[in-house]
Amino acid sequence: LIMNHVNDETGMVAVIIPAAGEGRRFGAGQPKQLTDLCGWPILAHTLSRFDQTVAVDRVVLTVPYGRIKQVREEVVEPYGFTKPCVVIEGGKTRQESVYEGFLALEEDVDLIVVHDGVRPLVRPSTIESVIAEAREHGAAIAAVPVRDTLKRVRDGVIQTTLPRDEIWQAQTPQAFLRPILAEAMAAAWREGFQGTDEAALVERTGHPVRVYHGTADNIKITSPEDLVLAEALIGATAEGNHH
Amino acid sequence: LIMNHVNDETGMVAVIIPAAGEGRRFGAGQPKQLTDLCGWPILAHTLSRFDQTVAVDRVVLTVPYGRIKQVREEVVEPYGFTKPCVVIEGGKTRQESVYEGFLALEEDVDLIVVHDGVRPLVRPSTIESVIAEAREHGAAIAAVPVRDTLKRVRDGVIQTTLPRDEIWQAQTPQAFLRPILAEAMAAAWREGFQGTDEAALVERTGHPVRVYHGTADNIKITSPEDLVLAEALIGATAEGNHH
Repeated sequence: LIMNHVNDETGMVAVIIPAAGEGRRFGAGQPKQLTDLCGWPILAHTLSRFDQTVAVDRVVLTVPYGRIKQVREEVVEPYGFTKPCVVIEGGKTRQESVYEGFLALEEDVDLIVVHDGVRPLVRPSTIESVIAEAREHGAAIAAVPVRDTLKRVRDGVIQTTLPRDEIWQAQTPQAFLRPILAEAMAAAWREGFQGTDEAALVERTGHPVRVYHGTADNIKITSPEDLVLAEALIGATAEGNHH
Repeated sequence: LIMNHVNDETGMVAVIIPAAGEGRRFGAGQPKQLTDLCGWPILAHTLSRFDQTVAVDRVVLTVPYGRIKQVREEVVEPYGFTKPCVVIEGGKTRQESVYEGFLALEEDVDLIVVHDGVRPLVRPSTIESVIAEAREHGAAIAAVPVRDTLKRVRDGVIQTTLPRDEIWQAQTPQAFLRPILAEAMAAAWREGFQGTDEAALVERTGHPVRVYHGTADNIKITSPEDLVLAEALIGATAEGNHH
């Protein structure tokens, strides 16, 4: 079903990859999405996963101010990716960057995927599944059930333990039919709402967002420890994109 | 202040380390707490951290049925630990194991620390701080603020995004003045309550539980990926307990 995705009945599928953070605290003097991971920049791994995904037609990368040329030369061009990839400058926040990406989409795109630039281990099968869910239901994200015990804390004192069995950790990809994301972004701008993901914007509009049970290895690289883990995971699966 | 902890004004401090899980899914045919981590069983690392902590006087390990001799020979004896360590069989659940540990405590223990056997990277400074908080306030745990976006999910649909700034991920150590933990365990038994940590038991009794801001590297090893990360973290800090 998913592998037979064809683009003549439905519109094009584009992925917006916000990668505009300068990530200066990560060290090494360059944005963390350009940091080396097993021989490739992190962002090139991410791009590769979407390049391998049949259901994805196009890619929009949003990068830090002044980095377009560098990202083209170091991420987009060297690895033989085949899907069209537009590189633009992002905004000051993730939400602004996704909006900039949205403005760069052609009119024939009717389904939009958003994916963190620093989640390089996402599986193409996860991307396909989230797209299929969004195609059917309008909005879907990858997520995993939390394993930790979570507490609501105020002024250094536990208020309550959260009911773990209903709580999921949101990941990306997150996918939306175009009018649903457009309406959600417009409402967020109008009302000054900043979300930590795109689903939060859509939830506010009342449109149901489906959850696809992803995999725990789809980690977000935000610290040097995460980078070490990502290296180990790539080594362990022996599914590297290269070699 | 903390380093000057003396035991003549207050009672003894004991740590109960539940390590009774068989962890068969972890692979390798033995409990995960006995799995090798940089040359030592995971549980020996954990024990070492408490052995290094000035404020801790005694240790109670609860281990799987039939494993007492093995744990004594492979974990407790080979590494030159100096604090008294009792090894007993645990129960069917974590909560039961902690209760078994509690029953094994001498009467002069007035402050009890509980710590996961598979959190081998805990820092002695964290243990000291949690003990100091519990000494002053009666109950305290280590925890870190969540970084992920969390969703409440029902029937595969997002109900809401949780307010991230108030949510913390509970860790261990968790420390309690003896009567507070005793009352909480008794209430849980009486009312058939199963908690995912000891703080949850105390919270139900209404006694405030303080939160000490711990460190993200105090990970719980529950999957092979966690083991890889733990190895990397030990290597990165170059603070290994041995070599």
